[in-house]
Amino acid sequence: MLYNYFEPMDNYDPSTNEYDVIFVGGGAGGRFGSTYFRAMGGKQLTIDKDGHLGGKCPKNACVIHHYLFDIAVELDLARILDDKKWYPKLPTGTGKVEIVPMIEDYLKGRDEAYDVMYYQSKNQLNLEFILNREAEIVDKNTVIVDGKTFKTKNLVIGSGSRAAIPNVPGKELSGVYSYADFLELDYEPKDVVVVGASKTGMPWASFFNAVGCNTTMIDMNPFLTAFNLDDEIKEYIIDGMKLRDMNLMDNTTLSSINGNGHVESVTVVRKDGSKETIKADMVFVGTGCIPNSEIAVPLGVEIGGSNEIVVDSHMKTSVPGIYAIGDVTGGPMEMWKARKAGMVASKNILGMEADLDITSFPDFLHTTYEITWVGMTEKEAREKLEKVFVIMMPIKDYPGHCPIPLAERTMLLSHIHPGLNGMQKAIYDGETRMLLGAQHVGYGAKDSFQYLDHLIRNGVTIDEMANMNELFLNPTHYIQLSRLRAGMKSLVDLT
Amino acid sequence: MLYNYFEPMDNYDPSTNEYDVIFVGGGAGGRFGSTYFRAMGGKQLTIDKDGHLGGKCPKNACVIHHYLFDIAVELDLARILDDKKWYPKLPTGTGKVEIVPMIEDYLKGRDEAYDVMYYQSKNQLNLEFILNREAEIVDKNTVIVDGKTFKTKNLVIGSGSRAAIPNVPGKELSGVYSYADFLELDYEPKDVVVVGASKTGMPWASFFNAVGCNTTMIDMNPFLTAFNLDDEIKEYIIDGMKLRDMNLMDNTTLSSINGNGHVESVTVVRKDGSKETIKADMVFVGTGCIPNSEIAVPLGVEIGGSNEIVVDSHMKTSVPGIYAIGDVTGGPMEMWKARKAGMVASKNILGMEADLDITSFPDFLHTTYEITWVGMTEKEAREKLEKVFVIMMPIKDYPGHCPIPLAERTMLLSHIHPGLNGMQKAIYDGETRMLLGAQHVGYGAKDSFQYLDHLIRNGVTIDEMANMNELFLNPTHYIQLSRLRAGMKSLVDLT
Repeated sequence: MLYNYFEPMDNYDPSTNEYDVIFVGGGAGGRFGSTYFRAMGGKQLTIDKDGHLGGKCPKNACVIHHYLFDIAVELDLARILDDKKWYPKLPTGTGKVEIVPMIEDYLKGRDEAYDVMYYQSKNQLNLEFILNREAEIVDKNTVIVDGKTFKTKNLVIGSGSRAAIPNVPGKELSGVYSYADFLELDYEPKDVVVVGASKTGMPWASFFNAVGCNTTMIDMNPFLTAFNLDDEIKEYIIDGMKLRDMNLMDNTTLSSINGNGHVESVTVVRKDGSKETIKADMVFVGTGCIPNSEIAVPLGVEIGGSNEIVVDSHMKTSVPGIYAIGDVTGGPMEMWKARKAGMVASKNILGMEADLDITSFPDFLHTTYEITWVGMTEKEAREKLEKVFVIMMPIKDYPGHCPIPLAERTMLLSHIHPGLNGMQKAIYDGETRMLLGAQHVGYGAKDSFQYLDHLIRNGVTIDEMANMNELFLNPTHYIQLSRLRAGMKSLVDLT
Repeated sequence: MLYNYFEPMDNYDPSTNEYDVIFVGGGAGGRFGSTYFRAMGGKQLTIDKDGHLGGKCPKNACVIHHYLFDIAVELDLARILDDKKWYPKLPTGTGKVEIVPMIEDYLKGRDEAYDVMYYQSKNQLNLEFILNREAEIVDKNTVIVDGKTFKTKNLVIGSGSRAAIPNVPGKELSGVYSYADFLELDYEPKDVVVVGASKTGMPWASFFNAVGCNTTMIDMNPFLTAFNLDDEIKEYIIDGMKLRDMNLMDNTTLSSINGNGHVESVTVVRKDGSKETIKADMVFVGTGCIPNSEIAVPLGVEIGGSNEIVVDSHMKTSVPGIYAIGDVTGGPMEMWKARKAGMVASKNILGMEADLDITSFPDFLHTTYEITWVGMTEKEAREKLEKVFVIMMPIKDYPGHCPIPLAERTMLLSHIHPGLNGMQKAIYDGETRMLLGAQHVGYGAKDSFQYLDHLIRNGVTIDEMANMNELFLNPTHYIQLSRLRAGMKSLVDLT
């Protein structure tokens, strides 16, 4: 392994200290922005306080999230198929599975992931970078690291975000975690309360539940309000969690975390104003992130109401020559946005006008399912358009559960527990026959939703969809379901 | 359940016996063709000798294939992660898992799948059909079922295909199976020889191996010759099977199956002419399919050298008014081809000229991995074009295995067994910057390859790819890997 956690991991030409651009922060945005800039022929330097590139994603966010999701799905399946003598069995019978050894295995692998990013950034992408040291920003053209001065024509700030912890009594107790310190877990929780049914809260709660913890999830709003999904899809997701014995409390606010040194319980306020105390030896907070904009305040850039650096679609801040990218510019705090923002900033710095368009994008969420969506919901479409055409599986009026696999690797579930094998729909404009949006609960749709987003953005009709070549069994049946209706001049819902 | 296995499952208007078209065979092609025809306003009747629509796919082909694949993946993972005390365990320690109970569970679910297809065909698609009875084709305008005469203006034959069994001594022994009778398995095989490293042989061999049978796979050619994959992808697939202790013998011909009533061994001839006898209590034959064209011979339609009904791109046979669709027209014997052929035949019958284009399409294959490909290989591209640009993961020169997940639900594998987490590449024209092809080993790419096929066919550049919105962790990293290079005027391989 080339990567060394404890040493400076620098790669820059010491013969000069002048750059076209310095990226402060080598996360998703900084790394991709730097790469694009370098690829276009510009001279960049990327500085990160952590000992690796890639930012929080490999450190403690998306990667551990997916690692836990992978495990949760497998444990969930083992529980569901426990009566099948040919299916793998929970290692603990039906009991709780230990979490700490999973984390230990994760941490071993993480260093190797850092190593690949280091190798790629240095050997393939030829980036110049300084890692494991703080950048002291003197002014927009001057950055000091370890007493050494670096001069730059442009500054790009990609300082990321941090977990937002609700300001309630007891938040400092041991046993209160967010994604940011989850990897420090050193005991086996039994009763977990997850605060926030968010993109972080949902998968972590599902993981704790699959592992065998008594799991409660609370949210101040109705569940899934923030996600652009139709009601029957939301219902399917929530029902799936209930079926797995998760304790779900929506319209519920965290009032206090109680304990003596360590968490012992949580007090919440229900919608009707009543208080309830829930036993807990762990609290996991998934209530969003705060942009790390403090580093930019002395530069005089405009800071918004959510602590974000305000940028235009060119990623320009209010101060000429200073750009900002990624989570520090506020939501959506997504990988694609950070990376593309890096690309857009780089193009603009080099005089190629480019815009970051965040008006529509594909999105996803994990429970023990993968949930993906893009474009308009049926509800939105029906509000805006005269004639809307919808295809959906399972079939609404079919008497019983629909034993057709609606996701990848659910041929098994569809034959044994057909109610658990997913849900999907697609929404068309019935007049123009254009695809407007799609939603999927299951597995294996994430990759295609990227391309569906592109196709919707550029326009694709049901007739073009019907003429594509499906790969049976495709997780989304949009092509063949479209073909079942495309012969019609006036489209009739297939739901 | 509406579906009744033993009774006629008819749905047609008894007040007339005249149709625009009769589909003989209600498989993938017949069902979709009928639906398209009906949707366009035509009057159709679909007749199938089996008691269900959908043909061999739900009966004994694609569906059981995927069901066994799902199980194989889970058993494989349980074996790989056996040393992790938090991962589900094989139900038998490390021993062989029983197959017969899996089949019993499958068969219970299959009837419910038939039921949904029946419900959908009748209630949603309003098809007219006669099931569970043979169609006697008198002439191209006359079909008799159960003594009742049906008249039609056009005839569409979709009579499918059957397993091709090599004509060797011992082929009639008990213990010799193909996909077509695998569901009749009533004992637990220990030593299995799979003949043919085909789209059927590969997944079945991988299944037997994952279950814990001693598994040998033979093929008369070098492995994977028939598949449009680059050498390093083929190598990764084959290495993956070897690593899992499968006994692989390529360039090897089946000479005889030996036994006294039941299979006891198999004799093969190696490339160098030497004979070898392999112990076996089961032989699984995956040597392709033969079109069921016999039904059409009396009609005088042209039959090709592979027993297929010869059709043009309109699905017209050599006899006006007779069309043929699906497997009976020869390879590729794929779901999409059958379904689209049904649509194309229907359009042409109703005077809308339409062609079935089979010159390029996305494709897939299962081992314990999902393998997907579309478009040109690197080899093909380099033969045809001046300048070719390739992106690939894992990184070729990286010292060690690349711990970046290259497929869905492999964040786990990538952290614990990074060599097992997949492989992927994309091929661009370095001059025009157009995407030419892609290949993937892993999970979760099947759905997106459908859309990549469409995009390649219609033209998509690396710059458009770089500007798409990825959903991290996407099984294929094509969008972000493209973005890492798209800044370059002259593209440099990223492999």
